[in-house]
Amino acid sequence: MYRLTALVTLLSLAFYFFTCINVSRSRTRTGVKAPAISGHPDFERAFRIQMNTLEWMPIFLPSLWLFAIYISDPIAAAIGAIWIIGRIAYFTGYSQAAAKRGPGFAIQGVAAIALWVGALGAVVMRLV
Amino acid sequence: MYRLTALVTLLSLAFYFFTCINVSRSRTRTGVKAPAISGHPDFERAFRIQMNTLEWMPIFLPSLWLFAIYISDPIAAAIGAIWIIGRIAYFTGYSQAAAKRGPGFAIQGVAAIALWVGALGAVVMRLV
Amino acid sequence: MYRLTALVTLLSLAFYFFTCINVSRSRTRTGVKAPAISGHPDFERAFRIQMNTLEWMPIFLPSLWLFAIYISDPIAAAIGAIWIIGRIAYFTGYSQAAAKRGPGFAIQGVAAIALWVGALGAVVMRLV
Repeated sequence: MYRLTALVTLLSLAFYFFTCINVSRSRTRTGVKAPAISGHPDFERAFRIQMNTLEWMPIFLPSLWLFAIYISDPIAAAIGAIWIIGRIAYFTGYSQAAAKRGPGFAIQGVAAIALWVGALGAVVMRLV
Repeated sequence: MYRLTALVTLLSLAFYFFTCINVSRSRTRTGVKAPAISGHPDFERAFRIQMNTLEWMPIFLPSLWLFAIYISDPIAAAIGAIWIIGRIAYFTGYSQAAAKRGPGFAIQGVAAIALWVGALGAVVMRLV
Repeated sequence: MYRLTALVTLLSLAFYFFTCINVSRSRTRTGVKAPAISGHPDFERAFRIQMNTLEWMPIFLPSLWLFAIYISDPIAAAIGAIWIIGRIAYFTGYSQAAAKRGPGFAIQGVAAIALWVGALGAVVMRLV
């Protein structure tokens, strides 16, 4: 049950894990040593990419699973895959410059909100 | 199943999402541009409100669901609703001044710990 | 169902909660007042311990549960217990000096990745 959603969940964790490793590598490249979290703009952008991905995990994962449970496993997984694509675009853009973080952010935001709205609609319909 | 807990989960995500948007708006108002996360006390408080809410999500959400599964869906949802109310009070107080963040923090803390203690008790009772 | 995994989940939340309280106590000891998150190396290490634990929660918890559901509750719980032990070692080491954070970090990293790899293997095997 929910195998596609489970697969997309694990892939989203892998991508998030990659943004964490990228911060470590950025520490080596820029010389910003732990526990400092500022000191070089390249490091700060790498750190913010990880943080922003972390910040969206508690919106994305519960919405994804409630959508899968109350509506559909394959549709939840498909929208979840779009979320990951948006996150990759956000990573690529923001790594280059803060001004290029918009499109990827918008894609993942729309995907996450679609999951949330769908789940809320399905839950409310069963309650009334 | 667990419809009330699902509803409270989605509402807590909506409130958390609101604290994230509030950080973006605070960047515009105070002129603290991404990726910086300091530079103006109003921005720093807005950022800490979001961060503190994020920090409590992994305590709140798993405790809420384990309480719902092992004890009761409506009781979990009711305590979860108190958590959201505490978070709103924390947001309102901390937005004004750091010294006013106490009461809301206490309410959400007691609610989260009640969910955690209840879930632990129910799990341990079934194991022994 | 999944009682051992539920128990390990609640214990991991308790440990994470302890790292949060440790930040509050460190504020009192070092005089770094909220909303500041820098200003004293002892506080910064305490803050980074909490943050790093938070950063790994969305990797650990979903991998733990997908492993429990698709493979085994007691094995998931056992690996999850190793994760908590690694986190405690990370806390103890990093509290003394940034250079001593390696071994605990490695233990919890291997445990989390084992949960992730196991869950992915089990999900992929059911899909093909």
